[in-house]
Amino acid sequence: MPEETRLDVGELIRRHPAEIADILATLKEDEAVELLRRLYLRRAAAEPLGEMEPEEAARLLAELNREDAAHILSHMEPDDAVDLLAELPPETVQDILSRLGTRTARKLGDLLAYPPDTAGGLMSTEVVALPADMTAEEAIRVLRAKAEEAETVYYAYVTDEKGKLLGVLSLRDLVLARPETPLRAIMKSDAITLPVTMDVEEVARAFDKYNFLALPVVDEAGRLLGIVTIDDVLDVMRKEATEDALKLGGIPAGEDHPLDPPQVSVRKRLPWLMVLVLLNLTVAAVIRQFEGTIAEIAFVAALMPLIADMSGNAAAQALAVAIRGIAVGAVGWANLPWLMWKELRVGILAGLALGVQIGLIAALLWGRPLFGLVAGIALAGTTIGACLTGGILPFLFRRVGLDPAMMSGPVATTIGDLIGIGLFLGLATVFLPYLA
Amino acid sequence: MPEETRLDVGELIRRHPAEIADILATLKEDEAVELLRRLYLRRAAAEPLGEMEPEEAARLLAELNREDAAHILSHMEPDDAVDLLAELPPETVQDILSRLGTRTARKLGDLLAYPPDTAGGLMSTEVVALPADMTAEEAIRVLRAKAEEAETVYYAYVTDEKGKLLGVLSLRDLVLARPETPLRAIMKSDAITLPVTMDVEEVARAFDKYNFLALPVVDEAGRLLGIVTIDDVLDVMRKEATEDALKLGGIPAGEDHPLDPPQVSVRKRLPWLMVLVLLNLTVAAVIRQFEGTIAEIAFVAALMPLIADMSGNAAAQALAVAIRGIAVGAVGWANLPWLMWKELRVGILAGLALGVQIGLIAALLWGRPLFGLVAGIALAGTTIGACLTGGILPFLFRRVGLDPAMMSGPVATTIGDLIGIGLFLGLATVFLPYLA
Repeated sequence: MPEETRLDVGELIRRHPAEIADILATLKEDEAVELLRRLYLRRAAAEPLGEMEPEEAARLLAELNREDAAHILSHMEPDDAVDLLAELPPETVQDILSRLGTRTARKLGDLLAYPPDTAGGLMSTEVVALPADMTAEEAIRVLRAKAEEAETVYYAYVTDEKGKLLGVLSLRDLVLARPETPLRAIMKSDAITLPVTMDVEEVARAFDKYNFLALPVVDEAGRLLGIVTIDDVLDVMRKEATEDALKLGGIPAGEDHPLDPPQVSVRKRLPWLMVLVLLNLTVAAVIRQFEGTIAEIAFVAALMPLIADMSGNAAAQALAVAIRGIAVGAVGWANLPWLMWKELRVGILAGLALGVQIGLIAALLWGRPLFGLVAGIALAGTTIGACLTGGILPFLFRRVGLDPAMMSGPVATTIGDLIGIGLFLGLATVFLPYLA
Repeated sequence: MPEETRLDVGELIRRHPAEIADILATLKEDEAVELLRRLYLRRAAAEPLGEMEPEEAARLLAELNREDAAHILSHMEPDDAVDLLAELPPETVQDILSRLGTRTARKLGDLLAYPPDTAGGLMSTEVVALPADMTAEEAIRVLRAKAEEAETVYYAYVTDEKGKLLGVLSLRDLVLARPETPLRAIMKSDAITLPVTMDVEEVARAFDKYNFLALPVVDEAGRLLGIVTIDDVLDVMRKEATEDALKLGGIPAGEDHPLDPPQVSVRKRLPWLMVLVLLNLTVAAVIRQFEGTIAEIAFVAALMPLIADMSGNAAAQALAVAIRGIAVGAVGWANLPWLMWKELRVGILAGLALGVQIGLIAALLWGRPLFGLVAGIALAGTTIGACLTGGILPFLFRRVGLDPAMMSGPVATTIGDLIGIGLFLGLATVFLPYLA
């Protein structure tokens, strides 16, 4: 690192770990590694690494020697440490785990076994479990002693001797209770729990609904395994929202960051556009059937891009509503028949209005009322087809395990195109004697 | 309410307020109002109303008599009560406020004055402020006494006699400190604060970055006004993500819920589609200039929808990246020159690849290499235009105060269409003698 950009580490470590993480993320890789080494020497590397994106943190950590890396990991929150380990190659993970204390290594190994998109993958095992006959005063003393290592001391969990969750206490309940009260008397026994296999989207929905700061994770037997805290959920929600928005825009898995270099963006965007070209060849094939008509009445060509664009637009609207509805849990497979019927009616109503609009415009601009009628019917057909397919394809794709946000748009647009262009040129051919 | 659907209110009120809110939201309006009255008689109406969407809650509350409505509001969290009041007509708000105690009425009136999309609009004023020379033990006693009314007792705030924020304490710090320690010695004095005018998106970003459960809101003089809690931020983030996704799909302000009846959806979607028809007339006008060419070589029409669709697709990709980048704060106006240069290069790289693809396909399918060349150049032009405009328009629209997510897509698509179709038919006309 050149002398003039050398950061004052002594001053830096007094800042919030999230700010140090921001600085690490903006430095060039060799500078960031150098800074990380200096932070490590001041025992201040673990927290900022935990605040970084796991991929970036893993890239930096991989540059340190394994012994230092293991030492830093052992000081991170276990859930953050696991997110980071999940980004490293298996040999590296094994090597690092072998350098950790047995207890830490086993804990991290256990957490690594849960799929990252489940409650288990999100949870921390640093949770305080207390027996039901302990008093509030004793419980506060225990929490005080464990404050350093527990992920949150805002909730404590009451378990039986087999680890089964009996109830939940907030620190608030404890502080506000009379000191000699047994936990059994103040705990909430009908606690909301997250099954360890629950999908992260459902976890996010549970937090959104119940407004808790942390929720306990349990196995099938109801045994307490860990907790998920609301700040981890916030990260997940932001990530999922970004992924959804990008997929709706036609950008496949993996973030396309605005500041990525162009070749990275092209690698992410181009394959999808090339698939769309192929899909669109079906539309071109339909048009070729009507070359005779187009040669005779070339003015019909003027409205073909309108039909193609409208198909994409109407499909995008129905699709956005369906995808967000699925994401926030407002609708599911059971709603499909009603949604089909609804989008059909939306398509008919909007299609009629748009048909009348373009029909009048075409009749006026071209001075041919019959052409207006043909264009109007075609635009209505496009709209109906695009609404219907845009609204229901996400459910069908999801059902068969394909990504609804990516696949639905182009397929719905193509179906709308085929209906609209087919109707348009077909009707123009039928009425050719009166249009020419 | 018919006898058989009558809900057992006694059992219902033992459930979580969020679940009661769900039930209220699914009932027919008259049934929901009836249930709300019964909940009110059991003093259990305020919390479920606070958990509902403010619009729905306001609709129900408006059906009660004003005295009951005021009574329920006075038992809600002030920030929830204000969200609800903001949905009611000003006369109703005045009438309800006049029936409240002076202190509550003034508090709600003050909160109503902050724009809903700022930290002030999101905050609660139920916050515990303590003097710096109080001891930890006394502070816990104060918190215990105020637990009922304070929004959260997980943090306490230390202020001077003028209300200026001096530092922040977590309940955890208090519980873990020795009882006789003065707050001055344990408070964090460089607390992160939210200016009362800060935009909610920035508030969400601050929570995302710093992982706090609550952050204090201050005025310009640094006086403590209230706090924003993380659960409110979670609501805002979900709402903003949904709005962004819907706007990218072409659905203007106000949610289009998947289960809305079709006429409601049509009202929200149709106006936008009608604007798009008008925008597309510019493309039709360009095509009309080339009617002679199309009449002579009608096969060119087959690829016009492809160019129109590709313009929409390439624009949607660039747009989604830019909009999410702005939403999460990854890029801003200062990045514009670099982003223009980047999207130009993305457009050129992707455009060249797509041009070669369609060029080869067209040359093979139509047996005309020159037509392939023309189609390839046109598709490349469309892609470059759509990438560039899709990537930069969001910043320009945002700069002039227009909604970037709504406006950018159609304008970028139209510009891409004009470039692509213009190039396509223009080149076809130039090479007409060799193509015919």
